Amino acid sequence: MHSNPVIETLLRHASVRKFRDRMPDEEMIATVVRAGQQAPFAMQLGSVILQRGGGFAWGAPLNFIICADAHRIRLIARQRGWDIETCDLSLLLFAIQDAAYMAQNMVVAAESLGLGTCYIGSAPMLAPKIVAECHLPPKVFPLVMLVMGYPAESPPPRPRYPLSFTLFEERYPSFSQEQLDEAMRVMDEGYLAQDYYKADGLKLPVPEDREDRYTFDDYSWTEHISRKMQWAKSPEKLLEHLRACGFELGVGTPRWER
Amino acid sequence: MHSNPVIETLLRHASVRKFRDRMPDEEMIATVVRAGQQAPFAMQLGSVILQRGGGFAWGAPLNFIICADAHRIRLIARQRGWDIETCDLSLLLFAIQDAAYMAQNMVVAAESLGLGTCYIGSAPMLAPKIVAECHLPPKVFPLVMLVMGYPAESPPPRPRYPLSFTLFEERYPSFSQEQLDEAMRVMDEGYLAQDYYKADGLKLPVPEDREDRYTFDDYSWTEHISRKMQWAKSPEKLLEHLRACGFELGVGTPRWER
Repeated sequence: MHSNPVIETLLRHASVRKFRDRMPDEEMIATVVRAGQQAPFAMQLGSVILQRGGGFAWGAPLNFIICADAHRIRLIARQRGWDIETCDLSLLLFAIQDAAYMAQNMVVAAESLGLGTCYIGSAPMLAPKIVAECHLPPKVFPLVMLVMGYPAESPPPRPRYPLSFTLFEERYPSFSQEQLDEAMRVMDEGYLAQDYYKADGLKLPVPEDREDRYTFDDYSWTEHISRKMQWAKSPEKLLEHLRACGFELGVGTPRWER
Repeated sequence: MHSNPVIETLLRHASVRKFRDRMPDEEMIATVVRAGQQAPFAMQLGSVILQRGGGFAWGAPLNFIICADAHRIRLIARQRGWDIETCDLSLLLFAIQDAAYMAQNMVVAAESLGLGTCYIGSAPMLAPKIVAECHLPPKVFPLVMLVMGYPAESPPPRPRYPLSFTLFEERYPSFSQEQLDEAMRVMDEGYLAQDYYKADGLKLPVPEDREDRYTFDDYSWTEHISRKMQWAKSPEKLLEHLRACGFELGVGTPRWER
């Protein structure tokens, strides 16, 4: 593997879930967001609401709400005498990418400055609350939250799949049982070695009709993510929240209030 | 602004659209994808198909197809005796994020190693072709392509909105006409100063009933993106492609072939 300060920063990443009671200075905040802005996909369909002062996940002093934002481009198009004709689904697909590329640059920049970060994935499910609190205009969807601050812990990088289970040459392979077992083993043993779930007493419940045969000696990543995948069975709530943010994914529906 | 080698790399970013005829070595490719893997959101719902040898956009020697991938997690859950119950829309929203965070880490890692990159946003519209060529299993959606190689040009960083047009304190603001004008001016003058559209003769057509009053002396970013937003009027094709990849965004439809 090649290395340099950038690669080291990327490979050292671990989300931080314990923060010090100290506010990053204004220059740090500006640097992080500027670095975010410079991410590619230059339609700039991402924007950021910054909340300060605490009460955020893991005691972080800063909370960035990263939004997929097609509001500004609409204002600009109108100044040029155009309406936005692109359908919401396409708009959203590009806006989510813009926002995510920006967010990830922010994570990398923050960590290079000695700050810790953690994505909070629940923003879409909190959309109505965020829209009201932050006065989001139509066509702005809160994609993810990013808490940030000085870390009060320095967790090790978390396990990842073997490279061969993520990077495929030319074709998506049919995995052999051995490859699958190996990927699962790497993940499970890796997390167990870090006491990841045990340290926080983090174990998702099983349905009533199912026996929980796992203890913290063998409960690890593959069982955890499988249990995670039992929730959000219906898309209705999320579709409703997208709609409340002005995004109608289906066919033939009005898109912009004119 | 604070600075360090990471921040410098992020702020120096510009997409490369001209590549040298030289293949990055295996170690570089592995480093870039490993750095991608370490991105947060540890459900690892992103995977990468690597195509080599050219014929790709801008003459790049490498083309990474970055996929939102819920296939592997399904295989793993099955090994643990679970089915995936999470609806496709939620699954896709998380998988796109995983894939995008990974992709952006790859961009940053590649640029730190002296490689150039360019995202190609058309992957979703090429989904049926990619599925067939790359044998994508169900629940794998090609989100974006990333071409990579040694750059044969070193473009300057492209303009971005003023920070105050992207980063908002506590609330999304109502922009004044002055703020909007200023954001548009920064973008348009910035791109004009770089001869960005003129150099490539890049000017999107207007509909027949509309006069094109712009020349390369005043055609710039705000007019360009406004014209971009006249395409993809219907979501039908994209919905069809998502469906072909096994993602049904609506309510009450079967999600996995059992």
